[in-house]
Amino acid sequence: MTHWIRFEHTGHLGFGTLSEGTIAVHEGNMFEHPTPTGEALPLDKVSTLAPTDAGKMLALWNNSRAMAAKMGQVAPDEPLYFIKANGSYLGTGATIRKPASYDGKVVFEGELGIVIGRECRALSETESDDHIFGYTCVNDVTAIALLGKDPLFRQWTRAKSFDTFGVFGPVVATGLDPSALSIRTVLNDQERQHYSVSDLFFQPAQIVSRISQDMTLHPGDVVCCGTSVGVGSMKPGSVVEVAIDGVGTLRNRYEA
Amino acid sequence: MTHWIRFEHTGHLGFGTLSEGTIAVHEGNMFEHPTPTGEALPLDKVSTLAPTDAGKMLALWNNSRAMAAKMGQVAPDEPLYFIKANGSYLGTGATIRKPASYDGKVVFEGELGIVIGRECRALSETESDDHIFGYTCVNDVTAIALLGKDPLFRQWTRAKSFDTFGVFGPVVATGLDPSALSIRTVLNDQERQHYSVSDLFFQPAQIVSRISQDMTLHPGDVVCCGTSVGVGSMKPGSVVEVAIDGVGTLRNRYEA
Repeated sequence: MTHWIRFEHTGHLGFGTLSEGTIAVHEGNMFEHPTPTGEALPLDKVSTLAPTDAGKMLALWNNSRAMAAKMGQVAPDEPLYFIKANGSYLGTGATIRKPASYDGKVVFEGELGIVIGRECRALSETESDDHIFGYTCVNDVTAIALLGKDPLFRQWTRAKSFDTFGVFGPVVATGLDPSALSIRTVLNDQERQHYSVSDLFFQPAQIVSRISQDMTLHPGDVVCCGTSVGVGSMKPGSVVEVAIDGVGTLRNRYEA
Repeated sequence: MTHWIRFEHTGHLGFGTLSEGTIAVHEGNMFEHPTPTGEALPLDKVSTLAPTDAGKMLALWNNSRAMAAKMGQVAPDEPLYFIKANGSYLGTGATIRKPASYDGKVVFEGELGIVIGRECRALSETESDDHIFGYTCVNDVTAIALLGKDPLFRQWTRAKSFDTFGVFGPVVATGLDPSALSIRTVLNDQERQHYSVSDLFFQPAQIVSRISQDMTLHPGDVVCCGTSVGVGSMKPGSVVEVAIDGVGTLRNRYEA
């Protein structure tokens, strides 16, 4: 298992593997023959970034059996998804900002994120695993009151795409079996979500296969698997953690 | 008025200004002090690309008075929009492809595209003009049957994001007054859409101002202003042209 991280250090972007608080700096392409430079940096000397420069961040809706049961929704025939704008990306430790233009509730949604490793389209489920680079923790932050604000058009894109609302990290973990993972979300030290990937209608390999029928996926793209019950709103000063064993903890403060 | 174009030539990406069939090649950044190299290339010796490498392509729904009247929709209180995936981009002359995974109608939607020139957020309407680089023609291709396929979730992202569905070009035209423009869409030599920008509920400067309250916009981002009446479906072999005086004609064939 390897933990890939992106960071800023002395004004430069860098990436590498993280182990016991030390980054082994690499150069080249994270997804294709990355090369160690030999340089080691302590994690606490860098600013952590979202772990990939994702061209797109897709996110599923209604992919949790528990959530569907709670909301009275039937199982979807196929993955239902939207896009979070690429300007919304945020890494661990950075501050999620309440939008100045919106006064409603802002909620956290803890999720498993799939990170694509190779350009792909029209994959079978079996082929999907070879094109998944690894997994990350996601906080799919949502301005929830926008969804029903217009009677004719549910504003998924807008509700999900404010700057700082596309939170993922702290790393991309490779070599994990996703079916064994569980996602925990902790708000101000209180556990609010705790669910297993096995509760998702569509499993990661299925999701990647299905979506790759629609559009080409590229290295670094992130696909968020959808959240479960326990979603709640954040208040200025709230701290939200999304934790997945084997990946780590994505930790962010929310501020006005 | 300047016409900016992007192209591929002998395996390299390039950009420049287009005049009377000749490209004056430039280097650097299209949006910030582009520099002429002195090289001139005939347009017919290059492969034309979508004219910007857009980080995101946003598109409005329900922004035409004529369309709203036809559909019995009220005027929206604010711009309603979705994102077309960045893998869907296509320039003039390239082929729009019927998705292998979808058997329903695929429709053209001729639109005005706004191209952002400077990073911006929370702009006033007055400030918007200074941050708009120019305008382009858009064909917002849509797998229309997906919108109503799931009873609980309208699949805007998916319907709009298949590879080759984000068509814009042939150029970005600077120095135009958008309020005087009209959009014509021609399917197989028959005019199917012809409407004025003045018929749009939200004008370009308003759209950019409103959306910039939600998210940061970046140079090269494209915002599609929404279509009007006359949308229709394409058949394999169809040729669709979206023409705007002062910008030019975006011409694409549709094939299975």
